[in-house]
Formats: sequence, structure tokens, C-alpha cells
Amino acid sequence: MQLLQSPAMRPLYLSYCFSSSRYLATITFSSSSSNLLPRPILPTFRTNHGFNSTPSRSRLSIRNCSSISAKPSSELRRKKGSPDSSESDDTKLRALRQLFSKPAIGIDAYVIPSQDAHQSEFIAECYMRRGFISGFTGSAGTAVVTKDKAALWTDGRYFLQAEKQLNSSWTLMRAGNVGVPTASEWLNDVLAPGAKVAIDPFLFSFDAAEELKDDIAKKNHELVYLYDVNLVDEIWKYSRPDPPNAPIRVHELKYAGVDVASKLSSLRSQLAGAGCSAIVVSMLDEIAWLLNLRGGDVPHSPVMYAYLVVTMDDSKLFVDSSKVTPQVLIHLKNAGVELRPYGSILSEIESLAFKGTELWLDPSSINAAIVNTYKAACEKHLEGLGSEGTGKSKNREVSNGSSGQSWGPSGVYRASPISLAKAVKNASELEGMRNAHLRDAAALAQFWAWLEDVIHEGAKLTEVDVSDKLLEFRKKQDGFIDTSFDTISGSGANGAIIHYTPEPENCSIVDPKKLFLLDSGAQYIDGTTDITRTVHFGEPTAHEKECFTRVLQGHIALDEAVFPGTTVGFVLDAFARSFLWKIGLDYRHGTGHGVGAALNVHEGPQSISFRHGNTTPLQKGMIVSNEPGYYEDHAFGIRIENLLHVKEANTPYRFGGISYLAFEKLTFVPIQNKMVEVSLLSDAEINWLNDYHAQVWEKVSPLVEGSASQWLWDNTRPLVRQ
Amino acid sequence: MQLLQSPAMRPLYLSYCFSSSRYLATITFSSSSSNLLPRPILPTFRTNHGFNSTPSRSRLSIRNCSSISAKPSSELRRKKGSPDSSESDDTKLRALRQLFSKPAIGIDAYVIPSQDAHQSEFIAECYMRRGFISGFTGSAGTAVVTKDKAALWTDGRYFLQAEKQLNSSWTLMRAGNVGVPTASEWLNDVLAPGAKVAIDPFLFSFDAAEELKDDIAKKNHELVYLYDVNLVDEIWKYSRPDPPNAPIRVHELKYAGVDVASKLSSLRSQLAGAGCSAIVVSMLDEIAWLLNLRGGDVPHSPVMYAYLVVTMDDSKLFVDSSKVTPQVLIHLKNAGVELRPYGSILSEIESLAFKGTELWLDPSSINAAIVNTYKAACEKHLEGLGSEGTGKSKNREVSNGSSGQSWGPSGVYRASPISLAKAVKNASELEGMRNAHLRDAAALAQFWAWLEDVIHEGAKLTEVDVSDKLLEFRKKQDGFIDTSFDTISGSGANGAIIHYTPEPENCSIVDPKKLFLLDSGAQYIDGTTDITRTVHFGEPTAHEKECFTRVLQGHIALDEAVFPGTTVGFVLDAFARSFLWKIGLDYRHGTGHGVGAALNVHEGPQSISFRHGNTTPLQKGMIVSNEPGYYEDHAFGIRIENLLHVKEANTPYRFGGISYLAFEKLTFVPIQNKMVEVSLLSDAEINWLNDYHAQVWEKVSPLVEGSASQWLWDNTRPLVRQ
Repeated sequence: MQLLQSPAMRPLYLSYCFSSSRYLATITFSSSSSNLLPRPILPTFRTNHGFNSTPSRSRLSIRNCSSISAKPSSELRRKKGSPDSSESDDTKLRALRQLFSKPAIGIDAYVIPSQDAHQSEFIAECYMRRGFISGFTGSAGTAVVTKDKAALWTDGRYFLQAEKQLNSSWTLMRAGNVGVPTASEWLNDVLAPGAKVAIDPFLFSFDAAEELKDDIAKKNHELVYLYDVNLVDEIWKYSRPDPPNAPIRVHELKYAGVDVASKLSSLRSQLAGAGCSAIVVSMLDEIAWLLNLRGGDVPHSPVMYAYLVVTMDDSKLFVDSSKVTPQVLIHLKNAGVELRPYGSILSEIESLAFKGTELWLDPSSINAAIVNTYKAACEKHLEGLGSEGTGKSKNREVSNGSSGQSWGPSGVYRASPISLAKAVKNASELEGMRNAHLRDAAALAQFWAWLEDVIHEGAKLTEVDVSDKLLEFRKKQDGFIDTSFDTISGSGANGAIIHYTPEPENCSIVDPKKLFLLDSGAQYIDGTTDITRTVHFGEPTAHEKECFTRVLQGHIALDEAVFPGTTVGFVLDAFARSFLWKIGLDYRHGTGHGVGAALNVHEGPQSISFRHGNTTPLQKGMIVSNEPGYYEDHAFGIRIENLLHVKEANTPYRFGGISYLAFEKLTFVPIQNKMVEVSLLSDAEINWLNDYHAQVWEKVSPLVEGSASQWLWDNTRPLVRQ
Repeated sequence: MQLLQSPAMRPLYLSYCFSSSRYLATITFSSSSSNLLPRPILPTFRTNHGFNSTPSRSRLSIRNCSSISAKPSSELRRKKGSPDSSESDDTKLRALRQLFSKPAIGIDAYVIPSQDAHQSEFIAECYMRRGFISGFTGSAGTAVVTKDKAALWTDGRYFLQAEKQLNSSWTLMRAGNVGVPTASEWLNDVLAPGAKVAIDPFLFSFDAAEELKDDIAKKNHELVYLYDVNLVDEIWKYSRPDPPNAPIRVHELKYAGVDVASKLSSLRSQLAGAGCSAIVVSMLDEIAWLLNLRGGDVPHSPVMYAYLVVTMDDSKLFVDSSKVTPQVLIHLKNAGVELRPYGSILSEIESLAFKGTELWLDPSSINAAIVNTYKAACEKHLEGLGSEGTGKSKNREVSNGSSGQSWGPSGVYRASPISLAKAVKNASELEGMRNAHLRDAAALAQFWAWLEDVIHEGAKLTEVDVSDKLLEFRKKQDGFIDTSFDTISGSGANGAIIHYTPEPENCSIVDPKKLFLLDSGAQYIDGTTDITRTVHFGEPTAHEKECFTRVLQGHIALDEAVFPGTTVGFVLDAFARSFLWKIGLDYRHGTGHGVGAALNVHEGPQSISFRHGNTTPLQKGMIVSNEPGYYEDHAFGIRIENLLHVKEANTPYRFGGISYLAFEKLTFVPIQNKMVEVSLLSDAEINWLNDYHAQVWEKVSPLVEGSASQWLWDNTRPLVRQ
């Protein structure tokens, strides 16, 4: 799956999309640097934010959105697109604005982002506040409401959808288009100087909140953090879905490879090395990985809503205890992990600061509520130590971890150490990934055999029908849990919409005379998959074949790359583009993203992109996607995606005394030979394709039979130069 | 020529060498960021620094080092290596230390860098102060002398030479080796806290001086700027060579392409755009380019020592008037350029500040003496405006060019705009480069024909003999002026020393049984060349052939690259390495550097390197070298270098509505087919080589005859797969 924007890994993935960095920054307010010095505006707050601890916020459930079992595309689409309640959008805006002038609030504007409190890529329905208030249900967008205006920023993927879903009270801001201001620029334009702009500090990373604050400060606006209330939730009230409460399960050691105690022990060594005594973890996949747990709170990602605090002596998991099964309870107890209510995280942070705990906080993922709470509590702690200490503290730079202990804690603000540890897979995780990919390949062989058959028989199938059928085949595979993202099933021109997700109401019939792009993936008990194939059911044009072949050449060049162990992902990106460049073509997205082992389909810290912001070297054990593409607006889209494991290369030399790295393929599904213009390929490229197909047959044929086996045989025959 | 370190383009080229960034930073104190806020330590100074204006510094010349006529390698080597005077190094150190305690000086250490006042790559002999004081004559090194210690930092190229040349009073610091401190670290270690470390502020760029200041401040040392005296010159006295005074010549418009008035007009538009009213130019090649002048003050670069100040109304060239011929005087007058004494630059800077002139200063190239003078004078100017102004000024950040006018000038600190303008060649410059390369190719064909002949006849030639003979052939070409750098002529293991320069006393015989690497270039009236070829006179081993072929494949991949017009040089670097990487090999230098048109053989701002610091996109009209290599210590070195012109590619599509770029070859000299392992090459690569050789024959054969013509014919025959 091509990642355009992953809020979960914003510092990384902001750099992912060719043309849209400006608008991605715009709609998320995200920051590439962490300016940590300014103090929180609200020095005190209560710690009852969240869904478990606030009786005043109790609400009736219309639907439990926990989804450990996968929904077909048709159903998911209907669900997401459904009108939420009887209230019109105008009524909602009026109600929201009435709150602006309440005495305890007193604001001029409210910013409603897409995010949950954990910067998750996929979020539970009860946190889809931007969708509720605006009516726009796309995955990316920011709503900003002032006393007399309402505007919504989204990117090119969603312009059409937003036009349909927004009513006349809203102005659509087509982020990335020339002349369209950023949300901050717009606020600076429409508000009288010195206005109060409010946010829910749980929904902004500390970095993002600081950037917003700095941007609007240019017009002397103040950023107000509303800790105690989310204004959208106040309006949503009884119709708001309950928070998810899917049971948590233990991710078995045979899949995880390393037990929790060992992972915690390594983490503590890193904390000690950085001069810290504790860390707060808020990224849901990091918590799941560290504790060998999996959940079902959000679609596509097997995670549960929680915070984790690990000190040198203990670990506390802040989670709704109703999700904790007896087995999980024993598992956690064995690892020395205690349970705390999800909503008590801020009071724990305060208490840690008062105890003088030096906290490791990743300002790009930890929300502003937590960071500000910690900073304010540290300040209070210092005040308790007398005026001398306070004076020093005010002049202090952000600690680098080695100083500051004599004055009290100040925090270490760095990228989470768990991100890299999680990205480097161990042998068990790799084994699980390999196995899951073979079962996934079997499902895909069955699917493609079926699809080609029915299309050739003249069946009229929609893009959603096709997605649903693919899900059916995958569900039959052992250990299947969920899709790893919404299937991108695009016929003809829809394939050119990079993040197209067909909707039952208005998707296309799969046209046998056009290219068909299918990007899909699954969560299995032992691994996560993500694969794209582009096929033609009839006869492709010469131009389609040339474009496909050049995409394939780029795919092969990256797949076959061998490189020094110190190489940063972006160094390899041009390999995947160079064949398109020769004829003046390119694609506007990165070439590779990290993938979790039975975890999130998008993860950092590595990437392979044309952008140069991410300087993480590729390391042995990482998994990346290899997915060059080409998209011709209003015509067709091509993408060829495999997942790759970064392995040590068996080179005859090791210049510089370092290891050289190469890739091992995880994905084994045929690439349609019919699409290849053989005359463009070198002998080496033809050999690559034929070798790959031989491996596909060898590895997947034992898992299929009948028509699928025949299809696999037919589609793995060697290509020969005429 | 491979560039390891060019002081002239430090911010750019620090990122050039694979393994040595740490030591390059070490020995130059150079900074990647410009911290502009600290004030100069010495607020007042006289402006009599320099070689023309200080009667007390008059000295007898032992040799005039202006060198508009090229010297053979043999002669240059002898000259550079010759002992300087009858004083022993110990005497010099003693004399230097006696100066430390003089009342007007009072310092604990003195740092003597390699640089002249213009950050030149090649410098005049009278400025080789580090060589004079230490005895070490290599091109890169920093000497640091304390009251009881003396240490010299240099890099791996020069360890052997330094060991020989330094006497026992000196400690050799092998920069880049594990455990070797930087000069700053060493100073912080050996000096008691609070010491005074002095420099000549003319010899450090502002950035480099600030970095040194910050580094030694950690131990509370103070950086003292000695404006009025260079302590080494004080000792050198009468034996110091006179400053160069080669006559300046006009670079004819048919070669320059654009007249001086037009260049000055463009520059003034840029100044206005940046909110400036003047610029100080100190890079010698920028002055030469801007004024369409050429000089002969230093070897290899056709430049003259000068400063240039361009305001909105006038231009002043600070230069020794004895170099200015009547023709140059008319040329300058026509362009509205006035002459000023070289030594009066600081008083001009002061005067500009007092007039409220907002100066554009490139802190990476303009020396600390100029920048500090300007800052101090601005401060004084403000004091003249009253206390309110001063107060504001103290809190001000470095101006971005748009503010500050109401308070008085503060300077705009940015990369020089002339650097990019100079790098993008116009049609006349390109024509000159093409023509110069063809004449250079003719000289090389004559040379190689001769060399192969005499080697096969059994002649015993040294590496220096070969260099000298090459110079003879080049001298016969029209418009030849000088070599563009010291010829690198390395037989066998010497070829593995990337910046090897043979010396007559101890160079090797060219061994017909080993690889021979020859990297050389010339300055012609119309263009500058730089070419490397690696040949074998007998039968190369299979390993040598494989390495050569992989270097060639990288050379071809870069040569054939087509890329979007926004592409940064480092994106292309991996193309040149990927074939070596496949077998675990690599090379520790960048792949390409900019080249001037009848100017410096190394110029910025573009580069093609594995380092990612230089984010200048390649642009149509730029010239870069393409010089991948492979070096096997104690065995052989391989490098294949052509110069390339960045041109617009004729692609059938232009995705994104932008131009795509490609390369045009400027260099036309055969690549030895004998060295190629044909089985490793694709058909496309074989075609590239054969096409290239066909072009070489077509373009160069009309310029040669007899044995050279026969050699050219023999060496341009198509390679065929067996």
C-alpha cells in the first residue's frame, strides 16, 4: 500500500509524498523540528480527559466499533459514509460556536484535527471528531471553526469527496493548490489580531502544537489548550459511539521471538544510557510490540488504546481493564507490568515529575497534553526546591540527558527508542512474515484465478465486489485477522488516484479493456502483508506496456540493489525511478515504507523516498515495501509492490570493513508477463522475472489446487525474448 | 581530478570525502552553520593588513611566485619541497614563541592554517605560512603552536610526507585516525583553562573562526584576533617571497559570453531582492568571473589576488595596481569599476557600515577580519544613533535582509549569489569548454601514443617524467596557459593513493606490468579540463579487469542518467557506485565536482557525492566531473573521469510539467578496451562504449596525425562480445 500520509509517523512520512509536503504540513500543523522551550499556556488541568474516567461524558452507544473481525469493503464503506445523526451540520456548528463564549472557555476559533491521542493512522470511530463536525469522512483533513466561518483542509485525494460531503456552511480548502493558505495562514487572515485559538491538546503531538502556536503568534493570536473538554464531544454527546473495547490477546512468543522481560530490559539500558529514568510510550504499535500484546480497537492495526510508562523499576499499562483477559493479566504480571486506568495517565505524569523522574518523551508522537503536564509539573517541582533552582531552570536549554539532575527533571526529548527496536525484526518475526506471505499468496492466486475467469465470462463486477471477494479468499487462510488497510481496487482511470478506495454507491465496474490496479494487504496472526499488482484482462496498449515495463525495471533495480550497511533509504529511491526518468516520467510518492510484523502496515523509522528528511540507515532485519508506480491522470495507474526483508549480502568483498546489505523478497505472487515489453528489458532483467516466477511456483503451488494451481502455473512460465 | 578538500569551497566540499569528514572539519575548524551573533573580540583595528600597505613588512624576494607559465611537475615538486632558509625549524618556533609574550600580543597559542585570505584552493607561496613554520609542505594541514608544544594536523594523504618533513619539535596529528583529537580538543586538553588562543582573522572564514571560538570556549579559552600582525610573517621577514604580481588580462567577450556591465546589473538585482545595498566578494574566481578578468597570481587557477565591493552605484576592485595593464584599466573603466589598493579593504568596509550600507556577506568564504570589521562598525554606527538604537540592536537576530533598515545596517549573511551564476555556463563559455577539451584530447592522444610506444620499447620512465612529457604535449596546443592542478601520475600501488602527486626524488618507475592512473588537466584561454584514465601496458589480471569494468559501469550509469530538473546531485551518486556495491566494493570520495569555464578546476555550488549536505539541484548549463573509482591499498587504483555538461534532455514526456536533464560529454579520450571484462557489460553498456569511441574518433582525429592518429584509430575500435 502506498502511504501518502501517516499521522502515526508524521516526522517520517511527511516526507513521503512527492508534491504535497506543503499541504501535508498545512493540514496537520506538523513540525520537523521540536521547539521545546515555550511553556504550556494552561499551567494546571485535571487528568480526567479520556473515555473511562469522566462520568459527565457518559454516552449511549450506537455501535461498538471494535473490529477484530474484518469487514468487507462494501460494509466498511457504507458504515463510514453513513450520516451520523439527525442533527444537520449547521446545527452542529451553531452548537459548537455557542460553546466558544462560555465563561470557562472564551475562544475565537477551534481546530479539529483527524488524529486520536496516539497519532494513530487508523482510529476508532468515537475519535472521528473532524468527520462528525464537518460531515467529511476522508482519512485526512483538518477542520477549523471560527465564530462566523468554518473551513476544512484536505488534500487532492479527497477534493471530490469533500465537495460532496461538506454543506454550504463549510469552505473547502484544497490544500496543495496554488494560492490556498495553510490553516495557520487562514487563521492569521480571518481573525482580528490577539484572538484565542483553541485545541484539544491530546489530539496534537507536542511538536505540532508548538508549530501551530508559533505560526499564529505572528498575528499575536494565543493558542489555548482545552484540557478538560473536547468541544466536539460535547455536541456529539449521546450519539457518539462508545470507545472500542475489543479484548486484548497475547502475541505468542513463537511469533514475537523475544519475551517482554528481555524487551523491557533492553529498553531500560537505553534509558540509562540517555540519562533517563523512565519513558512514556503512546504509539499504539510500540506498546503492542513491547508487551507482546495485540488488540482490536481500530480497523487494520492489531492494537489497543493504551499508554505505557516504563521506569527503571516498574511498568504501568494505562488501559481499560475490561479489555484485559485473564490470560493477558497473567502475561502482564509475569512481565512485571501493572494496570492503571487509561484516563489516569496525566496524574501519573505529574506524579513522576514530582518524584524527580527524568522522562524520555518523543515530541513528535507524544501529545501536547502529556508533555505540557510534565513540563508544568517539573516547573512546580523546582519551585518547591526554592527560588534559586527556579531561576536556573528558566534559563536552561532542553536537557541532553546528561545534565539537569542536580536541579530536578526537565525531560529528554528524542525519537522513541522503541521505533528502531521494533523495526529490526528477529528470526521469529521474520519466519512469521514469510509464512503469512505464502498463505496470502495462496489466497491471491485463488482470487486472481477466479477474477480472470469471471471477467472472461463477461461478468460485470464492481471494484467493491472484487475487494469483497478477495477478502473472502483471505479469510479462508489460517490465522487471518483483518485487512491491513482499505483495499485499493481501481479500474482504468481510478487506478491513477493513488489512494483510491472504491465506495459501493459510486465505484466503477471493472473494465476488461482497461488496466486494473489492486493494492491490498492482510493481518495474520503471524505477519502483515501489503501487495500491489496491476493487470490487464485484455490487450494492453503499447504505451501501457512501456510504462508498466519501466515501473517493473525500477522495481527490479531496487530489489536487486546491494549497498553498504550505512546507506540511508533515500539513496536507493532513484534506482526505482531511473527507467521512468529516461522518458520524462515519474511518480509522486515514495518507493518504500516500513512494515510491522503482525502489526501496523506502515511503520518507521526507515523509508525509501525521494525526500531527504529521513536519514535513518537501512538495517539488517528491517522490512520495506518496494512499490514504484506510474499514474496517468484520467487514464490508468500502475504500481508493482512487493515487501522486502533487508538481509546481509553475501558479497565477495567488504570494502571499508562493513557489511553490505541486500533484499530478500517476502511477496510471491506473479507479475503479469503480458504487460511486459520484452524489448525494453536487459537479459538480466528477464532473468530476474523468470527467477522470481520460478520461486513463486515453487513456494506457492503446494498451497493451492485446481484452477488456482493452473492459474499459478500459467502465470509463472518464463518470458522469452522473441 | 578528485577533490578531497577544497578550502575555497569549504561548506560544499567538506562533504566530499567518504571517510574523512571528521578530520576535514578538524583541521580547518570549518562550520556547517553560521553562528553570527557573537561580537569580535577586538573591537578596533587598523586596516593595514596585507602585502601592499605595510612598509614595516617590506621584505626581500627570493623568488617571484607568480606563475602564468606552467611549470613541469619535476620543477614544481623541487620548488615546493625545497628547504626555505638557513633557519632551522626549532629557531622558527623559538622566535614565534618569543612573540607570544610581547606586551601588545600576550597569547598562549597560535593557530596557523593553510589558507590565504580568500579561502583559495591554490595559494601563492608568500602565504604558505603553515609550510614555512612547520616545514610540512602538503596542501592541507593546520599547525598549532603553544608555549611548549607544537602540533600539526593533516590527513591520510600526507602522513608519510609529514613524518619526513616535521622535525622532533613537532607532533604529527594523524587526523581521522581513531583517538586523534581535533585541534580544538587538543587545545582544550593542553592549555590551562582561560588561555588566549590567537589567529590571524584574515586566514579564517567567519564561520570557521566562530566554530573555533565556540569549541575552545568550552574550556573557557578566549579566541584572540591579531589583526595587525601575522606572527609567522614576522619571523619569515626578509626571506618571505614577495606577493605575486602577475599582470592581469582581459578574458575576451567571445569566451566570457556576457559583458561585465550585464553581470553587475544582474548582481545588483539580486542585492536589491535580498534587501542589500552592496556585496563584498573575496573568492578570487568569483571576482575573475564577474569582471571578465584573468590573472596569474597562483598556480593552476587563472586568478589574481583582489577583493571586490559592488554597491548599487559603483564597484571597487581592491588590487595591487602594478598588475593592472592599460588594457585592463580601460576594460574596468568601461564597466564602471574603480581601483583601490588591496590593503584598504577594511577601511572601505568600515566606511560602508558608517554610511548605513546593508552588506551581503557570505560567512563561509568572507574572512573573519572583514565580517568582524563590518559588525563592529555597524555597532559603532548604532551607538552614534543613540542608546535606544543600540539596545534594540543587541537583541536582534541576524537580519534576513528585510528588516533592520530603520535601525541601521546589520548585514545579510548568505551564500554568495555569484557562485551559482558562475556555475551556470552560457553558450560562449560552453563553446570554449568544448573547444578546449578537443585540443586537450589531441594532446592526450599524442601523449598516450608516445607513452605506450616508449614503454613497449622498454624505456624506464618515472611518474614525474611522464607528467612532464604530458605537459610538453599540452603546451603545444593553442591557448594553453597552465596545468589546472598538479598531475596525479601513479603506477601500481601509487594509484591507490587518491591524491598522490609524484615527487622527482622518490617517485616510482612506471611499471609496464601494473595499472597506471593518470589524472590531469589544463587551463586554456577558452576552457578548463580535468580527465582521468587508467591503463595497463601489459596484461591486466581478471580482478583488475572486473574492478575496472564495474567502475566503468558506474561511469556509464551516471553519464546516461536522465533526471527531473529539481534533482540534487547526491541523488545521482549511487548510480556510479551500484556496480561496485554488488561485490562489496566502494570508493571513498565523491563522484563529481563543478568545474569553472577557463577558471578553477573545482567550483561549487553543485556536487555529486555520497554525502547529503549539499542540496543544490543540478541545473542546465552546469559542468560536473564524472569520476567513480576503486582503490586497492598497496596494489592499484582505478578512476575514469570525464567532464559533463548538464543539458536539457529530449524526453518524449515531461511529467510534472518540468524539464528533465541529462549530460553531454565534454571529454573525448579513449577508455582502454583491454581493461574491460565484456561479459559483465550489458548490450546497452557495450553500445555506450562503442558510441563514445566513435565520437572520439570523429571529433579528435582531425586534430592529430601520424602515430597519434594511428593510436586514436586503434583505441576507438568497437568492442565486440565474444
